[in-house]
Formats: sequence, C-alpha cells, structure tokens
Amino acid sequence: MQSILPAIAVPSSDTLARFTAIVGEKYALTDPADMERHLVEHRRLYHGKTPLVLKPGTTEEVSRILALANETGTAIVPQGGNTGLVGGQIPFDNEVLVNLERLNRIRSVDPRGNVLIAEAGVTLAGAQKAAEEVGRLFPLSIASEGSCQIGGNLATNAGGLQVLAYGNARAQVLGLEVVLADGRIWNGLRALRKDNTGYDLRDLFIGSEGTLGIITAAVLRLLPPPKSKATAFLGFASLDHAARFFDLALEAGAGELTAFELIPRLGIEFVLRHAEGTRDPLAASHPWYALIEIASQRVDEASIRAEALLVQAVETEIVADAVIAASLAQAAEFWRLREMLSEVQLHEGGSIKSDVSVPVADLPVFLSRAIDAVKAIMPDCRPLPFGHYGDGNIHFNVSQPVGVDKAAFLARWPEFSEAVNAIVLELGGSISAEHGIGQQKRHLLPKVKSPLEMELMRKIKDLFDPRGILNPGKLL
Amino acid sequence: MQSILPAIAVPSSDTLARFTAIVGEKYALTDPADMERHLVEHRRLYHGKTPLVLKPGTTEEVSRILALANETGTAIVPQGGNTGLVGGQIPFDNEVLVNLERLNRIRSVDPRGNVLIAEAGVTLAGAQKAAEEVGRLFPLSIASEGSCQIGGNLATNAGGLQVLAYGNARAQVLGLEVVLADGRIWNGLRALRKDNTGYDLRDLFIGSEGTLGIITAAVLRLLPPPKSKATAFLGFASLDHAARFFDLALEAGAGELTAFELIPRLGIEFVLRHAEGTRDPLAASHPWYALIEIASQRVDEASIRAEALLVQAVETEIVADAVIAASLAQAAEFWRLREMLSEVQLHEGGSIKSDVSVPVADLPVFLSRAIDAVKAIMPDCRPLPFGHYGDGNIHFNVSQPVGVDKAAFLARWPEFSEAVNAIVLELGGSISAEHGIGQQKRHLLPKVKSPLEMELMRKIKDLFDPRGILNPGKLL
Repeated sequence: MQSILPAIAVPSSDTLARFTAIVGEKYALTDPADMERHLVEHRRLYHGKTPLVLKPGTTEEVSRILALANETGTAIVPQGGNTGLVGGQIPFDNEVLVNLERLNRIRSVDPRGNVLIAEAGVTLAGAQKAAEEVGRLFPLSIASEGSCQIGGNLATNAGGLQVLAYGNARAQVLGLEVVLADGRIWNGLRALRKDNTGYDLRDLFIGSEGTLGIITAAVLRLLPPPKSKATAFLGFASLDHAARFFDLALEAGAGELTAFELIPRLGIEFVLRHAEGTRDPLAASHPWYALIEIASQRVDEASIRAEALLVQAVETEIVADAVIAASLAQAAEFWRLREMLSEVQLHEGGSIKSDVSVPVADLPVFLSRAIDAVKAIMPDCRPLPFGHYGDGNIHFNVSQPVGVDKAAFLARWPEFSEAVNAIVLELGGSISAEHGIGQQKRHLLPKVKSPLEMELMRKIKDLFDPRGILNPGKLL
Repeated sequence: MQSILPAIAVPSSDTLARFTAIVGEKYALTDPADMERHLVEHRRLYHGKTPLVLKPGTTEEVSRILALANETGTAIVPQGGNTGLVGGQIPFDNEVLVNLERLNRIRSVDPRGNVLIAEAGVTLAGAQKAAEEVGRLFPLSIASEGSCQIGGNLATNAGGLQVLAYGNARAQVLGLEVVLADGRIWNGLRALRKDNTGYDLRDLFIGSEGTLGIITAAVLRLLPPPKSKATAFLGFASLDHAARFFDLALEAGAGELTAFELIPRLGIEFVLRHAEGTRDPLAASHPWYALIEIASQRVDEASIRAEALLVQAVETEIVADAVIAASLAQAAEFWRLREMLSEVQLHEGGSIKSDVSVPVADLPVFLSRAIDAVKAIMPDCRPLPFGHYGDGNIHFNVSQPVGVDKAAFLARWPEFSEAVNAIVLELGGSISAEHGIGQQKRHLLPKVKSPLEMELMRKIKDLFDPRGILNPGKLL
C-alpha cells in the first residue's frame, strides 16, 4: 500500500529498557515470533516493524509510557484488536507499539443508569456481553466484534451494521479517560446525558486515530434491548427500487429499522461459490438485494411490522421478491451471506477496495456513475459495491477480471480509487466513511480537505502532541 | 449577577466606521433605543452596553466583520435570538455586538435526504416549520423556539424537551459553516451520516458559546415525523415511584418516549395561582407529577401504548393517578402547565435558579439531598425542582419564603448555588446541563473542571482565537 514514511528516530537501548521496566519483562515483547501478530493485519496489506511491543495493564502504566515517550521523543503506535483496515494500528519501523489488550476490565455496569464503563482493551463482543448480562443492549456492531476493542472502536469512530438506528461509535459514548501525549491523564468519565460546561474534548479524541491521546476507558451508553427482531432478504429490479424501498421502510418506522445492507448479485454469487453451506436466498436472481432488520420493543411485533412493510412493497412492485427469516437459524443464514462478502472476494483474485459515503438520497446516482467509471477504466473488471445503504456508506470494491494477473490489477489501485473518489467528492461525499485515514489514505486527505481545515487539524495535533510522538505518519 | 469583567478596549471611531461600512448604515445600530432589545435579556439579569450593533446579511459580511475585528483587536459578541439564560449573548461594555438575525435563509430542504440547510438566524420554529412543510420533523424543541435561533441553539448545544428521544442540538447536526476569528470561512456543510476523515471540528464549535468562531449555517438532520402522539399527566406518591415509572416506560418503548418532564406539587400550585385558565390536572394532589409524551410511527398507536403502560403502572401502584389527554386541546393544556413554570415563579418573589444534571438513576437521591440542603440554609425557602427528568437534567429552582425581602433573598444566590452544586459534583453531575456557562457560571468553571481540562480548553481557545476577540469573558 502507498504509505509515506515519516522520519522516526530509533529509540536507544537505554530508552527501551526504561519502557520495559514500566510494564515488566513479561509484557514487553521483543521476540519477532511474539510480536508478529501485532505487526501484520489479516489482509496482509501492511506489515510493520517495531523494536518493542508494550502491553500495559493499567492506565497508570500507559501514562508512564507516554511520559517517557514524550521525554525521549520516542514515537508510539497505540493498538487495540489490530482489526483496522487502513494501517493506522501498524507501526512503520521504529515506533514502540503500545497494545491495550490487557486493559480489559469492565469497571462497572449500571443497568438502571444505562451505562457501563469499559477499559480500552475490552473487546466489542465483551462489552456487548457485559450489557446483555444485565438485560441491556450496547448497540455498536461490526464484523470484527469478536476481536476489535473498545479503545480502537472509539479511536476510529467505528460504524458498522446498526448505525442507521443507533449512530456511530461516537454516539455510544458519554465520557472518556484519555492519556495525553505527555502522560497526563484526562479523566472525562462522565455518565451524563447533558453537560454543557465547555468545549467538547470527548469528540475530539473520538476518531482521532490515536494521534491526539490514548483512550484508556469509556463510559458507554446502554439501551433496553428490543424484545423482537425480524430479518428479511429482499430482491430489487434496480437500485432505484432499492432507494424507494428504503424511503418506505424509514417512513414506516424510523428507529425500528436497525439495518439496511445492500448486496449486488455478484456478491451473492461469490458467496455461493466460496462459502460452504450457503444457498441462494430467493428463488429467482435479482440485480440487487437488501438484508434488512426490524426491531421492536414488543414481543412478536417485529415480524408483524416486517410482514406489513413487505406486503406493501411487493404489492406496489417496489420489491421483486422477499423472504422473512422464519427462525433464528434462517436469520443467521441471511447474515452469513452478508458477513462472508469480504472474505469471498479473496478467492476471486485481486480486489480494489474503498469505503465511501454520499448523502443517502444520492446513492443510486453514485453507484451507477461509479460502476460506469470503473468499467471505463477496465471493461471486464467486476464491481462489487455493498454495505451500509441506510447510512449512505458503500464499500465500493472492484474484483479483478477473471484470468488477469493479480499484482498488475492491484497496481492500478490508485487509478480506480481516484475515479471513484472523484464522483464521491462531486456528490459531497466522504472518501473514508467508517474505516478512517490511517496510513492508507493519508496522502489523499489534503486533496479532499480545504487548506483551512488541514491547517486547523494540524494545529490541533501540535497542541495535543507537540513532540509528534503519537502515531506519526497516520491520519495527518 | 456575578460577572468578571474582562479588560476590553474601546474601539476607535474610525474602526466603528469601518464596521458600519461592511453592513451599511441601515444595519449598524447606534441609537440606544434601537439597541436596547439586544442588550437586555427577558429576565433582566444582564444588561449590557455596546458602541455598535451590527446585523450582517451574509456569511461574507460576517467574515469581513471578523477580519476587521481581528485586525483591530475589537471584541465581538455574537448574538442569535437573545434567549440565552447565562448572559453569553450580552456584551459587557465595549464589545461590538454581531446579531445574526438577518442570516435567516433556509438554503435548501431535502426530504428524501432528510436534511435541511439553515442559516444561523433562522428561528428554531422556522426550521421546524421548514421541515414540517416537506413532511419531516426537526426534533429540537425548547420553550423559546419562537425566538431563539439555530446559530444560538448550536453555539450553546441547546437541549430542551425531546432530548430523551432525539438527543441534544449536537445530535441534530451533520455539518456546519463557521466564520473563524480571523474572518476565514470554514465550509463544513456536509450532509453525511458517516465521515471518518480527520478530527471532529464540528463538535468543537457546537457548545463553544461563540468563543471559537461564529456559526453561520448548519446542515440539520431531519426525521420522518411520528404519525401519532399521546400526552399524559401522572401523579406519584414519591420520587422513587417516579423513578420506577421512568424505568418502566423506557423498557416498554425506548425511542418512543419523547418527553418525561418532572413537576413538583408546588409548581402546579404556582401555575394554578398565576396562570389564567389553568386547572389541576388530576383529581387529588400528589407530591410529584410527570408530563410524558409517547410517539409512534403508526396512526392511533401512541394512545394505545400509553394506555397499556399507564394501566400497568396504576395496577402495580407505581403511579398514583394518571390521565391521557383526550384531545389536542387537552394535550396543549397539559403542556401549558409545564411551560408556565418559569414565568409563574416571577410572581412568587425571588427565585434562585440552577440547571444541573446527574446520572439519571441518581435523580431521586440528588433531589432529596438538594431539597434538604437548601432547607438547611433557609427552612422556609420553597424548592421548585422541575424539568427534564429523562435526561437527568433538573432546573433546581428555589423560590423565596413568603414575605421576605426579595433582594436579600437573591443576595444569597451563591450560597444556595454552592450547596446544590456540591451535591451535583459528588454525584458526578454537571453544574450546567443545558444552559451553558456564559458570564453567569464562568467563575465556577475552574472549580468543577480539572486544571488539565481547563488548560486544554484555554489552549484550544488560544488556537482558534489568538487575539481573544470572540466573546471575551464568557465561558473561559
């Protein structure tokens, strides 16, 4: 991947020894075999190097690590579950990697107050489970939830499958604890729904990708869970039909529609071909599909709502065909079709990826223009745009033509990416809807932000991290 | 009110002439009679002075005003509808007041995309109406909505009556246009649900009370409106019963419960005594009341939901008595009881006010301790805590004892305020839940924030406004 290496000084052996002393030898890895899982991410797009992986066990240890880093000018890469898709959590070369996985305590759970306090290293699934155990819902939900961690989720303002109803990671947080670049600890662990006392520091750290401070704990907002859910798979004759159905579903029950995932026919075909035990969800084939989920606070109500909505949509010919999952097993089957989409692309050769958003109402025009644009570059390429339709967020991926050389195809990533991004920008969209900037899109940022916005962001960076030790070469 | 006057230089007559030239003489007020309505707020707690009131008609004019202010070191007070309750919008003495009321265009409305772009001077009611005209809901709702303006709502992160279901002003905004202290315009008018490209500048300006920049326009998030609503008035034997009912209502329909306003018996008595045409909402008298609203996306469903909930609550003796409004007229009557609460206190002598929040589950303990605390100061004082129970946000007001001297009572404001705030802080609460800091609570901020948080906020202020021209002496 295209990355611009920042100049990062090599820490002295004395400095490394001082870092090691903070966490103890057991939690200071230097053996390449031990460090490996922290240095490569699962798609193998980024493979980093580091002299030292530190695993602090407390906020206090993180504080001492950053104080020392600041004193010695040592670059630090904070890392959660290592599931990021833009290389933000991977060091280039000489940075010390600070992995937060041992900060994995649920500090408190309060079902009546609808909050829980989780440390950065709690996995997303762990936070969901802690909420569930007291009869509450923590609604953030992403494909990597078994391994990604709360700290990383917040540092990247993760999105995922239920943003439509519940908002991004940012919306799930009431307060934060953050270790600043100089090691000082900001205790912003407030559990308030309303608090107008000064500037919003919380939202500045959320989404800053570890460049302004290291999030060590968060007060997460919980909800009473829905009492029933319905999952349905729908086929559409065109994108315009999908758009009309989305409007209809939103009108029928804003807040009840918890997911609206778009899948093209090619995606279904890839899954059927490469994922064992899957089957075509509908009798006939359709150019576009949606997987939707409807939730209700009343037992059994969700499926009644879903049925009424689908009957109306089929009768008015907005939907070509639809099926509501008759069991939890069938719902899981439907979700598997969606969840396998990333993996199955690996079996079809090279895949050029993007993660973009446009205003929701502009999705049909965006998709049709972007498909035309990539076909113009390479007529046989296979566009596979899918994802969070309800948020205007599409993973506009393109699989290589059958039989061509994978490396040669991937070498044209910038060309494809530029073509898609140009349409995104024309429509007022974002070149990184939910994955962030990391190393991957850092070179693009000045092209999509005004010089003024770049200047303000750089000044904020300098203010919070004057020595530039926090995740250098990422984001900005 | 206690205010600390910052040292503000008197602008020269040449500078004033240059400011006047930007907007034209017609929109540059110097006549005390013309300026009066901008210099005093309706409770008459703050009465400011200014050499000049400017009413720019475009973002460009705001930009030129701030460029000149920055050049000449002229202090500026931005003002919307002048409904703020902490004096943030009132100049001390020599500041030039920039009133945004002429920036009152709805730039665009997009019902399919569920967004509208409003300029800062559009009243909140105007934005609501623009949404309504295209079949959409803009859910921010506060008592002053007829006169307060979008710019002020966002600069103060306004709360109000429907935060429980829809969030604060912050949650209603997708993008902003802001004029910076040096006159440069940041165009952040994005209409995206997901955009992870860099630091969250938007949320830094929201709630900054005009001290970091002047918001000139915003992309507001719209929703399909509910198809039915039910309004009910409930009586409780104790605060603990109110708390149990809140939990029950939330469990029954999170997202459907759009308002949960707490009112003590004394509040009802004040309203009955001073507001013509009002009547006791329930047959017997109860120590505590709640006004609740339930919304549904289905026609006629809200009242069915409300009825089921209230039947359950009455049967389990959580609610002592309850009535669902049988008509829109009766719903309006119920709301009038709530809305008159601020005004009727004026007829009962001095009222010491606060606007605090605690974690929602801690409200009963907060209220009982705060009532004890003010009674300990003055046994005959009359606590009148009311407000947004569902957000943990209470306007903990205290009316003077009958027959004592008003001024002498009001002189003890700091003492009462400290007693209430001490309990708020012990419970991890906020001394300003929705009104902001302004001039009123500026001296309290360093007492409730850590030195580190104060330092970070001051550095951010210096970064955005190095000459200190934007609303000096407010907030920080």
